[in-house]
Amino acid sequence: MKKCNYFFEFLISHAKVYGFIFPSSEIYGGLNAIYDYGPHGVELKNNIKEFWWKSMTQLHENIVGIDSSILMHSDIWRASGHIDKFNELLIDHKDSKKRYRPEILIQKYVEKNFLNDPKKKEEILSRLSQSLKKKNLLDIKVLIDELCICDPIFKTKNWTEIRNFNMMFKIIEKDLFLRPETAQGIFSNFHNIVKSNRMKIPFGIAQIGKSFRNEIIARKFIFRMREFEQMEMQFFILPKEEIKWYNYWKKSRLKWHLDLNLVNKKYYRLCDHDHLAHYASFGSDIEFHFPFGFQEIEGIHSRRDFDLKNHEFFSKKKFRIFELEKNYIPYVIETSLGLDRLFLAIFSSSLKEEELKNGKKRIVLKLPYCLSPIKAAIFPLVKKNGLPEIAKKIFHDIKIHHRLVYDEKESIGKLYRRQDAIGTPFCFTVDYDTIKTDTVTMRNRDNMKQKRIHIKEIPKILEKKTGFKKILKKLFYST
Amino acid sequence: MKKCNYFFEFLISHAKVYGFIFPSSEIYGGLNAIYDYGPHGVELKNNIKEFWWKSMTQLHENIVGIDSSILMHSDIWRASGHIDKFNELLIDHKDSKKRYRPEILIQKYVEKNFLNDPKKKEEILSRLSQSLKKKNLLDIKVLIDELCICDPIFKTKNWTEIRNFNMMFKIIEKDLFLRPETAQGIFSNFHNIVKSNRMKIPFGIAQIGKSFRNEIIARKFIFRMREFEQMEMQFFILPKEEIKWYNYWKKSRLKWHLDLNLVNKKYYRLCDHDHLAHYASFGSDIEFHFPFGFQEIEGIHSRRDFDLKNHEFFSKKKFRIFELEKNYIPYVIETSLGLDRLFLAIFSSSLKEEELKNGKKRIVLKLPYCLSPIKAAIFPLVKKNGLPEIAKKIFHDIKIHHRLVYDEKESIGKLYRRQDAIGTPFCFTVDYDTIKTDTVTMRNRDNMKQKRIHIKEIPKILEKKTGFKKILKKLFYST
Repeated sequence: MKKCNYFFEFLISHAKVYGFIFPSSEIYGGLNAIYDYGPHGVELKNNIKEFWWKSMTQLHENIVGIDSSILMHSDIWRASGHIDKFNELLIDHKDSKKRYRPEILIQKYVEKNFLNDPKKKEEILSRLSQSLKKKNLLDIKVLIDELCICDPIFKTKNWTEIRNFNMMFKIIEKDLFLRPETAQGIFSNFHNIVKSNRMKIPFGIAQIGKSFRNEIIARKFIFRMREFEQMEMQFFILPKEEIKWYNYWKKSRLKWHLDLNLVNKKYYRLCDHDHLAHYASFGSDIEFHFPFGFQEIEGIHSRRDFDLKNHEFFSKKKFRIFELEKNYIPYVIETSLGLDRLFLAIFSSSLKEEELKNGKKRIVLKLPYCLSPIKAAIFPLVKKNGLPEIAKKIFHDIKIHHRLVYDEKESIGKLYRRQDAIGTPFCFTVDYDTIKTDTVTMRNRDNMKQKRIHIKEIPKILEKKTGFKKILKKLFYST
Repeated sequence: MKKCNYFFEFLISHAKVYGFIFPSSEIYGGLNAIYDYGPHGVELKNNIKEFWWKSMTQLHENIVGIDSSILMHSDIWRASGHIDKFNELLIDHKDSKKRYRPEILIQKYVEKNFLNDPKKKEEILSRLSQSLKKKNLLDIKVLIDELCICDPIFKTKNWTEIRNFNMMFKIIEKDLFLRPETAQGIFSNFHNIVKSNRMKIPFGIAQIGKSFRNEIIARKFIFRMREFEQMEMQFFILPKEEIKWYNYWKKSRLKWHLDLNLVNKKYYRLCDHDHLAHYASFGSDIEFHFPFGFQEIEGIHSRRDFDLKNHEFFSKKKFRIFELEKNYIPYVIETSLGLDRLFLAIFSSSLKEEELKNGKKRIVLKLPYCLSPIKAAIFPLVKKNGLPEIAKKIFHDIKIHHRLVYDEKESIGKLYRRQDAIGTPFCFTVDYDTIKTDTVTMRNRDNMKQKRIHIKEIPKILEKKTGFKKILKKLFYST
C-alpha cells in the first residue's frame, strides 16, 4: 500500500515536470479537482481521442459522430431525470465546515471499527443499504448518531441534517446547466441524425466532449474531476435484441482496451454492477487496475427506451422508428468511456523505473507507439562540424509527416533520458558517418538498442511503427 | 441584398438537411445562438482543427500545445480584467421585455431616419462615440430620449436605465465563471510550460477549446454564438520585437487562410482596427466576405505584457524570463481564430448551385479536399450479380486508411448528387468491367469527369489528393 501511494505521488509529479498535466489555476492556489493538459498531455490525449473516434466511426459504417453543445435547454435535463434524480447525499459538519457523503462516513467507520466483528459490520451495512434503497435520509442520520461518528478533524458530532445535493452546475440568471453527460446531446438530436444520415436500426452515434459534475468529494488526481471529458457511443437497436447487443458491446469494448494498451490482461476486468444509475436497466463496468486499486474506466449500460421515451413525453415529439408498417421506440446500449481515466490508466501502466546494466536507473514511459506525444527525436551527436545543420534538415523534411522534436541542448545520454521520460519511441542521431553514408543511428525506447539506417527509411519506419493503421486493421478483422 | 439573404437561408437549411449543423435542443424549441454539429459537421470541424493544430504546433518547433480547463479560479478573471471590464451596455424595454444594446439602437435609428441628413447623422454618431469613450451611460440615455427611439415591437418609449452587463456566465453557489476566452489558460500556465518544455523566447503556446459569452444579441447562425470554439495562439517575445512579430503574424495568418480556402483572394481582407479590447495595445482583423458582408474571422493583437503583468500582480508570482543576467516580462502577440466562423466561411464559399449541360441543376459543396467530411464513396452500379459484394470488399479494405462511405440505397445519379451535396471529392463505382479487370470508375466532384483506374490505386490517390501533406509542405516552405 505504501509503495502504491509512493508510486502515485511520483506519477503526479512526473506528469507535471514533463508537461503532461498541471493543476488548473495553480498560480492562485489551484482549483479542486480540475486539471490542465500540458504540451505532451494534450498530444497524448488527442491521440487517444483520434484512435477512439476512428475505431468507432470510421471502422463502423453504421456509427456516425456528433458534437453537441455543452449548454442545452433545461427541459432536456428535466426529461433525462437529472434535475430530479442526479443527486448525491450530503452532510455538513458545523464545526469543521467540511462536507461529507454520509454513506461513505458510515462505511469507513464500520471498516475501521468492526474489523473483528463481521456480524455487527454486516448488520450496519445492511441497514445502510436498506435506507439508501428507500431513500430514507432520516434513518441514515440515526445510524450516524447511533455510531457516534465524529468529524475526523474536529472530533465532534455537530452534524447538519442529511440532504440531497444535485450534482449539476447551474448558471446564474439563466435556466441553464452545464451538461453532466454528453449522451443527452445525442438523444435530443436523434431525429435530425436519422433523417440527415438516413440511419437504419441498428446504428450508433458517437461523441467526444466535456461534461461537468459538482462532485462533493473529488480526488485521485484526474480520476474524478469536476470538469472531465467523455467518449460516449449510443447504439440504437430493436428492443428484442437488447441482450445480444449488450453482450456484443461488453465484449467488443474490453477487446478494444486490450488491443490498445499492451499491458498484462490482468490489469482489466469486467464487472456487472447492481448499483445502477437512474436511467439504466442493467450495466457493466470495465475496470482497470489503477495505482489505487481497481476502478471503473468505462461503463456499458442498457438504457432501454428510458431517454427517448422521456423526451417523447416532455417534448411532445415522436422518437420512433417506422419500419415495415410498424413503429417503435428503439432501445439503447451505451458505451461510456472516461477519457481522462483512460489517459490515467495508460499513463500509469506505461510509467516504469528500470535498472540499467551499469547499475544506474532510468524512467521510461512505455506508451503504445501510436499514442506517444512525439513520434521521434532528431539529435546531432555534437554541436559542431555541420552535424546540427544536417540534423535540422532531416527534422524539417520529416516534420511535415510526423510529430518530431529536434534537440541539441544536452549530451546524447541526457537527451535519450528525456525522450524516454515522455515516451518517444525512436531517437535518430546524426554523427560523422552521416556525412559519408547518409545513415543515422536509430535508437529504440524500449530495448535501448541502436542500429544504423538510411535517412530515407525514417518516414516509412515511423509511418509503419507509430501510426494507427496496424491496430485499426487488427481491431476490424478480428471482430 | 435580397439574394444574399435567400442564399443564407438556403445555406442554413442545407447545413441541417445534410447533417452539418442542427439548432441545439431543437425538440424543446431550440436555444438561442447555440448549435450542434451533426455527423458531417463534426468531421469538417475536426479536419479544420487538425489542420490548424498541425500547422501551428507540428510545423513550428517553437510552438507547443495545451488544453486547459473551462472552469478556472476567479482570480484569473480578476487579473485578466474580465470581471471589471468585459461588459456590454444593455437597455431593457419594460413593455416588450426585450433586451437591446443601446448603441446599436441609436446607430440603427440614425441609419434609417437621417439618410438624407448626413450632417445630423454625423452629429449624433459623434455624440454617441464621445459618450461611449467616457463611459457616460446617462448621456447615451439622453440621446435615446431626445431621438424618441421606440421599441420596434411595442412602439413605446418605456425604457429602463442603461447598465453594464458582464458577458461571462457565472455558476450558482460557486465563485466560478465559464471562460470567455481560452487565452487565460495559456497565460496562467506560462511557467509550467516554460519549465516542462524548456521554451526559449520567442515561443508560442497554442490551444483549441470552447469559450462562452453571454451575448446580449447573438445571431447570424453560427457566426456569433453564446457557446463557441476558439483556436488561439499566444506568441511570447522580446518587448523590442513587438512590431516585427506583430507584422509577421498578420502576414502569416492571412497567408494561411488563402492557402487553405481556395476561393478568390477578394473574399479576405486585413483591417487594422481602432475599437480595441481592454487588453490589446493594437490589433488587426482578418475579415471574410460572409453572405451577410465582411466580418471578422480572426484577430491578431499585441497584448504586450498586459496579462502576464496583471497575473504577476494578483498572484504574487513572477512571470519573467531570465536571460543573460537580466529579467523581463515578455510581450505577447496573439492570433485568435473563431473556429465556428472559419467553418461558416469555408462552408459558405464552398456551397454552389451549378447548371449542368442537360439543363438540370446540382448543389455541390466544393470544400478543399483535405477538409471534406468523407474522402470517397464506393458504389455498386447495380444491386445484383455480385457487384455489391465487390464494392463492400473495397470499402472495408480501404476504410482502415480513409474515411469512406458505402452506399447502394439509390440510383448512381442520385448517389452522386448526395455526395456532391456533402462535399465528397471522389466516387468509385464498381461495374461489370470490375469483375474482369479489377478497375472501377473514379468520378471527380468538381468537374464530374470519370476515368477508369485499378482498385489498387485508390488508397494512394486518396492519400495524395485528400491528405494535409501537400498543403502543409506549401505552408512550411513558403514562410
